[in-house]
Amino acid sequence: MDRLKQQISFVVEIDKLKNIYRQSYLADGTRHENDAEHSWHLAIMAYLLSEYAEEKVDILKVIKMVLMHDLVEIDAGDTYCYDEKAKQDKREREEKCAKRLFEMLPEEQCREMYELWEEFERMETAEAKYAAALDRLQPVLLNYFSGGKSWKEHGIYVEQVIERNRRIKDSSPKLWRFVEGLLYDAVDKGYLKEGFRN
Amino acid sequence: MDRLKQQISFVVEIDKLKNIYRQSYLADGTRHENDAEHSWHLAIMAYLLSEYAEEKVDILKVIKMVLMHDLVEIDAGDTYCYDEKAKQDKREREEKCAKRLFEMLPEEQCREMYELWEEFERMETAEAKYAAALDRLQPVLLNYFSGGKSWKEHGIYVEQVIERNRRIKDSSPKLWRFVEGLLYDAVDKGYLKEGFRN
Repeated sequence: MDRLKQQISFVVEIDKLKNIYRQSYLADGTRHENDAEHSWHLAIMAYLLSEYAEEKVDILKVIKMVLMHDLVEIDAGDTYCYDEKAKQDKREREEKCAKRLFEMLPEEQCREMYELWEEFERMETAEAKYAAALDRLQPVLLNYFSGGKSWKEHGIYVEQVIERNRRIKDSSPKLWRFVEGLLYDAVDKGYLKEGFRN
Repeated sequence: MDRLKQQISFVVEIDKLKNIYRQSYLADGTRHENDAEHSWHLAIMAYLLSEYAEEKVDILKVIKMVLMHDLVEIDAGDTYCYDEKAKQDKREREEKCAKRLFEMLPEEQCREMYELWEEFERMETAEAKYAAALDRLQPVLLNYFSGGKSWKEHGIYVEQVIERNRRIKDSSPKLWRFVEGLLYDAVDKGYLKEGFRN
């Protein structure tokens, strides 16, 4: 029963992910999205959109990755992707949280969590590149369909979004073409500012 | 691009699951949990606790099932498991929603969604039994760790919870033993009423 108790303690601890709020709004614009909902959305997208990953991917691995990729934000908080200052010590804050959380689990599960997280962060394997593409596509969708709510609040320029999301192309040129279309449409609609940030 | 557009429309439509609130509170008791967070929690539990499923399960299938099992509540709403009246037309309301949602997808994905949902609802295969066990275990954990908040609000008796959750045993006698322990402890702590509802 000790092993099960360790696992249950972890399961209850990660409930806190539901209180880590992101900059993105829900598609209806009513409130900010939290990390648990975001992870759910990525997981279901992972399997519905897998045909668009250029390299063949192990879907189960991608889903595990996206389910756990934000757990390190439980202590470290969400770092807004256009906040260059906060991004500086992001890795350090997240590593501390990974250690605290993953070590609650039995040894081999702790190791698997670390490996999944490291693989996700390195963005080198087909699975990690596809997971990263989804992690970028999803907030673009929420932003676009909420009328650019979060982009407008932060005065974001289209080229900032392109720069950040270009990696979608590494996994899926087709998804990237779709996103580019949305982004130029978002400029036309006034959701994003034209050009670069000075 | 038409196929991708269909899939993206579905992905954006199911964002609404984040606004379907359940009776359970988060473990910290601060607010009700929504269906998207709940589904995320089940998916991560599915892989961390798979060793406790008596029959060997296809984990990817279980995860797909738990990710999508509550989508039908987008129109039908959450039906509280101890509300006998609301349970009467639950199936009818949910089928209508399944039709509307799943038919947004390309044909073979629509079929897969229907098949997963049907399999989950029938609770016959090893995967469906394990998914059902998780779907019962998770709210027990949230209730217990939030000090029985939702149980107390509804004046729930321990035998009602045992009756509803007994199916955990069909997939996993070990998890069921653990849950029984929690429930008797919940009675001692005053989170649940002793005995049966009259």
